[in-house]
Amino acid sequence: MLLREIERHGRIPRIDLSEVTGISRATVTTITADLLRDGLIQEIPREADADMRRGRPRVDLKIDGSAHMVAGIKVSDTSISLMLLDFEGTQLAELEVPMDKGAKPSAVLAERIKEATTSLVVLIGKSLADLSGIGVGLAGVVDAQNGTVYWSPSLQDSNINFRDILSETLGVPAYLDNDANLVAMAEKTFGLGREHSDFIVVTIESGVGMGIVLNNQIYRGTRGCGAEFGHTKVQLEGAMCRCGQRGCLEAYVADYALVREAASVGLIDADVPAEHRIEVLLAAAKNGTPMAKKIVQRAGRMFALGLANLVNIFDPELIILSGEQMQFDHLFAQEVIEAMRTSIVQIDKAPPDVVIHKWGNLMWARGAAAYALDFVHEMAAKDPNHDAV
Amino acid sequence: MLLREIERHGRIPRIDLSEVTGISRATVTTITADLLRDGLIQEIPREADADMRRGRPRVDLKIDGSAHMVAGIKVSDTSISLMLLDFEGTQLAELEVPMDKGAKPSAVLAERIKEATTSLVVLIGKSLADLSGIGVGLAGVVDAQNGTVYWSPSLQDSNINFRDILSETLGVPAYLDNDANLVAMAEKTFGLGREHSDFIVVTIESGVGMGIVLNNQIYRGTRGCGAEFGHTKVQLEGAMCRCGQRGCLEAYVADYALVREAASVGLIDADVPAEHRIEVLLAAAKNGTPMAKKIVQRAGRMFALGLANLVNIFDPELIILSGEQMQFDHLFAQEVIEAMRTSIVQIDKAPPDVVIHKWGNLMWARGAAAYALDFVHEMAAKDPNHDAV
Repeated sequence: MLLREIERHGRIPRIDLSEVTGISRATVTTITADLLRDGLIQEIPREADADMRRGRPRVDLKIDGSAHMVAGIKVSDTSISLMLLDFEGTQLAELEVPMDKGAKPSAVLAERIKEATTSLVVLIGKSLADLSGIGVGLAGVVDAQNGTVYWSPSLQDSNINFRDILSETLGVPAYLDNDANLVAMAEKTFGLGREHSDFIVVTIESGVGMGIVLNNQIYRGTRGCGAEFGHTKVQLEGAMCRCGQRGCLEAYVADYALVREAASVGLIDADVPAEHRIEVLLAAAKNGTPMAKKIVQRAGRMFALGLANLVNIFDPELIILSGEQMQFDHLFAQEVIEAMRTSIVQIDKAPPDVVIHKWGNLMWARGAAAYALDFVHEMAAKDPNHDAV
Repeated sequence: MLLREIERHGRIPRIDLSEVTGISRATVTTITADLLRDGLIQEIPREADADMRRGRPRVDLKIDGSAHMVAGIKVSDTSISLMLLDFEGTQLAELEVPMDKGAKPSAVLAERIKEATTSLVVLIGKSLADLSGIGVGLAGVVDAQNGTVYWSPSLQDSNINFRDILSETLGVPAYLDNDANLVAMAEKTFGLGREHSDFIVVTIESGVGMGIVLNNQIYRGTRGCGAEFGHTKVQLEGAMCRCGQRGCLEAYVADYALVREAASVGLIDADVPAEHRIEVLLAAAKNGTPMAKKIVQRAGRMFALGLANLVNIFDPELIILSGEQMQFDHLFAQEVIEAMRTSIVQIDKAPPDVVIHKWGNLMWARGAAAYALDFVHEMAAKDPNHDAV
């Protein structure tokens, strides 16, 4: 609890710590002595102030950033994005590693994550053993509590405990969550959701993700997998989705769905590499190629329909569309938002705010790192001598 | 608070009341004396027990059922259903009054509700002035907190404070809510939801309604209108809905939608009265008329799709399908539930329970009465001399 208060305040003298927590000064002194001895916090001289003049120089306590180090990792379709944070949450390094497209066996993906994480820590002359935890965000149906991945477009296996596989492969405690949940957590912690207790984050890139914050917490549902949006159905017996079902929203708005349609009408030359096909289609749509516009605009209308359904069902304060610039532009964001507004139940009150937050994979990785940091804080407070496995 | 505790216990002696509330015996005695004087509670001799033998006969306190009387009213497409409860929640009378189909001006509907409510209280020789409150459930988009009906299939007007209109027309305080929310409340209070903190009630009859209970409370969303299901879209630019938009779930599964399709292929003779057309269609489907089956089965598949989306988004513990027997049978309920199960994201855990709760309009009316009773309890506790307006 003291550790958490110190973290919250940044820097705080012992006497204030006693006041805000209601713990006696003597006890605060004893516990902080332990925390200092274990290297979790440090003393820093207080800036010159009134206290000095009274002849009693005081010290502030702060988290010792060097006590622990965590990595946040976002696995996307064609890359692994990583960020390294110290125990204070200060960024130490970042890295983006390209990866071949497509689902992989879990052992292969774990190995890729290990290689990428090693490259990350090497940037500051460290090794994997110096990490106290890694947070990993993955698209798909993930039970964060027990570490199970039920299904992910990044994995060939399903219903596996990928958290344990990662922990073993890297020799570092791993914490797993759905990637959109981690974006929602990032928005809540240091993004546009800081002032809101209830909001929805929708991400669209190679897939469509959603994170719901209700009452300041990630909504996870009864079975722990949280809210699924990309595989809600927008058309009975509709287009084939990579999840194996028909008519999912993703099967109309995700990159692969657009590329699939574009290829079928010859809009994309066969020699364009897979990872650049979406760009070719979007460029054609922007240049006014009629067939390309048709494809992209239907995707936008389907996305608007999905958003309108979320508004009808949840009536949230705020919807944050998060993801990279290009990904939203291609759906003509303003048209989508307008179409959403006309498709919701019309009442005599303003519809929820929809804001677009263009941040890249590294911010997702930061959300993952913040997620891991929470666990490491908790564990450090319980057992200060806790080290990487 | 004492009143609420007495209600919760049914019967309770003063000394226990002091214990469970932590209020001193002296204060309990003073306050309960006031409640007795105001006729809100009564004393009843305790059943023979150990106390008697010690020579000190004690009395229990209980709510005085005769202190107040409330009516619960459900407005449906072709009828008004009413239930009369006393202050204890005991049923005094019930009534079902037929009504001509279709949206009405708010003054006309208020007048119909007044006439029906008068007929109800007359059943036990009372008048409207004897009512302390009426609870009214209405299909559509209703803000329960401020009494606004933004849109209802029963009303020609939109964005009006129908609660105030009702209160004035009847001269009785009215409490308004979306009808499906009242069913959810009924399920929570005395139905299948008693043991569950999180569940969804879906109703299907002339329209499709939904009530969501999260954390033991009705989920109402940011703008107060709660969760909307019937007008979520299941088809881009789909069938025309009576709300004026296209592709709503209701436009595929509600009575009017089925009758509309049946009429267009000549399945229903022009001389069949409007209110019997759905029965004609359902009978034909049951008898195996191919076109009738086609119509009804697509409705079932669309309903399954909508349910699957709810499961994907909310991952609830339990879904209760509530409504009258016929209404569910016609969608081949087991087939619908099976189709829902194959359309949700498949994980290695059992899907949520789906139970069908066949109860009629009178149980909805009971939910409405319970809703009104809550307000009357609260007001009586604040101002024991509160009377009908």
